[in-house]
Amino acid sequence: MIVTLLTDYGSESEFAGVCHGVIRNIAPDSDIVDITHGIPKYDARQGAIVLSHAIPYMPVGVHLAIVDPQVGTERRALALRTGDERLLVGPDNGVLSLAWAECGGVSEVVDIGRSPHRLEPVSATFHGRDLFAPVAAALATGAELRNAGDALGAEELATIELPVPRVEGGVLSACVLSIDRYGNAALNVRHDQLPETGLTLGSGVEIEASGERFDAKFALTFADVKTGEVIVYEDAYRSLAIAINRGDASFALRLEPDSEVRLRPN
Amino acid sequence: MIVTLLTDYGSESEFAGVCHGVIRNIAPDSDIVDITHGIPKYDARQGAIVLSHAIPYMPVGVHLAIVDPQVGTERRALALRTGDERLLVGPDNGVLSLAWAECGGVSEVVDIGRSPHRLEPVSATFHGRDLFAPVAAALATGAELRNAGDALGAEELATIELPVPRVEGGVLSACVLSIDRYGNAALNVRHDQLPETGLTLGSGVEIEASGERFDAKFALTFADVKTGEVIVYEDAYRSLAIAINRGDASFALRLEPDSEVRLRPN
Amino acid sequence: MIVTLLTDYGSESEFAGVCHGVIRNIAPDSDIVDITHGIPKYDARQGAIVLSHAIPYMPVGVHLAIVDPQVGTERRALALRTGDERLLVGPDNGVLSLAWAECGGVSEVVDIGRSPHRLEPVSATFHGRDLFAPVAAALATGAELRNAGDALGAEELATIELPVPRVEGGVLSACVLSIDRYGNAALNVRHDQLPETGLTLGSGVEIEASGERFDAKFALTFADVKTGEVIVYEDAYRSLAIAINRGDASFALRLEPDSEVRLRPN
Repeated sequence: MIVTLLTDYGSESEFAGVCHGVIRNIAPDSDIVDITHGIPKYDARQGAIVLSHAIPYMPVGVHLAIVDPQVGTERRALALRTGDERLLVGPDNGVLSLAWAECGGVSEVVDIGRSPHRLEPVSATFHGRDLFAPVAAALATGAELRNAGDALGAEELATIELPVPRVEGGVLSACVLSIDRYGNAALNVRHDQLPETGLTLGSGVEIEASGERFDAKFALTFADVKTGEVIVYEDAYRSLAIAINRGDASFALRLEPDSEVRLRPN
Repeated sequence: MIVTLLTDYGSESEFAGVCHGVIRNIAPDSDIVDITHGIPKYDARQGAIVLSHAIPYMPVGVHLAIVDPQVGTERRALALRTGDERLLVGPDNGVLSLAWAECGGVSEVVDIGRSPHRLEPVSATFHGRDLFAPVAAALATGAELRNAGDALGAEELATIELPVPRVEGGVLSACVLSIDRYGNAALNVRHDQLPETGLTLGSGVEIEASGERFDAKFALTFADVKTGEVIVYEDAYRSLAIAINRGDASFALRLEPDSEVRLRPN
Repeated sequence: MIVTLLTDYGSESEFAGVCHGVIRNIAPDSDIVDITHGIPKYDARQGAIVLSHAIPYMPVGVHLAIVDPQVGTERRALALRTGDERLLVGPDNGVLSLAWAECGGVSEVVDIGRSPHRLEPVSATFHGRDLFAPVAAALATGAELRNAGDALGAEELATIELPVPRVEGGVLSACVLSIDRYGNAALNVRHDQLPETGLTLGSGVEIEASGERFDAKFALTFADVKTGEVIVYEDAYRSLAIAINRGDASFALRLEPDSEVRLRPN
């Protein structure tokens, strides 16, 4: 079975590699896919967003997400089954919540804090190695979810709520959820919310950001504007986003996660 | 079959991980090798150079290269077979061209823009996920190249030409093609061009770079000069290169890709 | 068989990917685990520490470590068997030495500089590709260690010695061995040395570092102190360490590898 990993361990440390070793020890026939280890450290919301974007493209399997600023506190650790038969494993801080919403909700969930699959002694600070990876690996070998921990109710779980965009007087008030490698800024506006925004393909948009105004165009792809021009578009995860053709919108418009922007069709 | 990946997606994003998921979905028995995801963003020439260096060390398989600044424009997307029976997949911007030159040229090529293997709807901005990875994965399962797209002529393809070094009055004028992790600078001078340069092993070389002159030695390995001294040598890909023993030549000589240098035996 | 990799190649270069290709060519059925490629460049001591931490969590296999500032000199290249039947491969500069100490010592060792498994011609500067990876891969296919090179005595091998902490007048003088992704600083004080330090769980500790004094608490986990407070704790590898709950101790206390610190119970 496939095991996918998403963490904030970074690409320089050995933390992800150690989790690979633990998984291979327990589930030698599993296939491991690293979704990313580049989630900004401690940023459970960003982890939740990226996992929800990536998971539809992963084979059904065990999906491990570790962004865990409260490691060592009383926060619970979870393993759960989604409506579409995926198994998700991670801390109970919402990092799994946008993914399970994407995958048919939670049909069964257990608290794995005292799981029989954990590696003893469980360290106080590296639950990825001692708790999450071994439980995920055991599940990948076919261990029963109900035996992996103590039953919980789905309604007890922590969730992450994304800020909701508003449209008032023809102006869309939104915020930046994430910036990608190319400086493209994804907003908290999903495909199904687009009709309310009043944006029409091919038309101009005035963007107010960082106290300045920028002229942009609402279009399909980067190539619909000239090099260096600003584009508002629906990105590959079907979120509204701001980019500069061959440029870096994050830099030019001084955008970062949580930056507020206003978009006015013009 | 093996599928190799080379992209400019960076090590922090989930883009490469999502491509892994797509490939595993379609070709669960394939082995995936990440050559690198660290190509500087949009730098198709650097991608082409690295792919041509790495591909001789890869098992014969499907080799995917995605450095794609023109994604969303009319640029074609390609899958092709090389003279030595490798399959290359990527945008038609030359990123594949140095690799196919290394691998016996192009024996068959198709435009995969409307490939039956693509994931619909194809997004405007993430062709790695929706087009290149699924076509590569289908080929890895044994799908026929001729059925993966529309036939093209090899002569229609974009290529990348590297700048040519010159020797005049005993002075070699070259340029930096790439800088590696250790600050070593590879020049556009290949093994078979060395005889023309007048450089002889063990002799001194004067390097003119960034408006300054530096004394160096043409030698086999770092250990042939003292710690901190400059060496000119043939690197592991058999290109002429400049390094500092245990130091960082890029920093000390202020070299970056495309920097011009002059080398004079002395 | 499993092959693990640990190098200072970084996450941007193709060096690790090329080694993967070489290993797959020779040992197509091996499983490769990347422990990390983020060892600071040339830092064999840090490589040795990380390998010794990670190896207990790896399946028994071939364990390759390449941090090799002396590549191209007369330094030897090694393949060896440990007391617990692991095979270690790497340069003879001590990078393997803390791992073999962890794994039951060296029971057999060969100099692989002229190994029949190497890729000829061996380049002067990329022994990972031409020497270490092919020897590791051959061993992973079951090739005999004694045939992989020329026999050596274990007593001839280079080792890395970690600095020893001192306790004098109730003050523990230690030094920082490594800083992790979160800014946590691991000291050269191991679990079995803790009793001598006079530290007692739940008590205060005064830390002297970078010419300043900081109040801390010796506790089990981050959550035992308030957000922003300094904690001294036993980390996941059972070394004494300094952290700030949800903060960055390395930044706040200006710690880096080799920084000296004094800890006084109070």
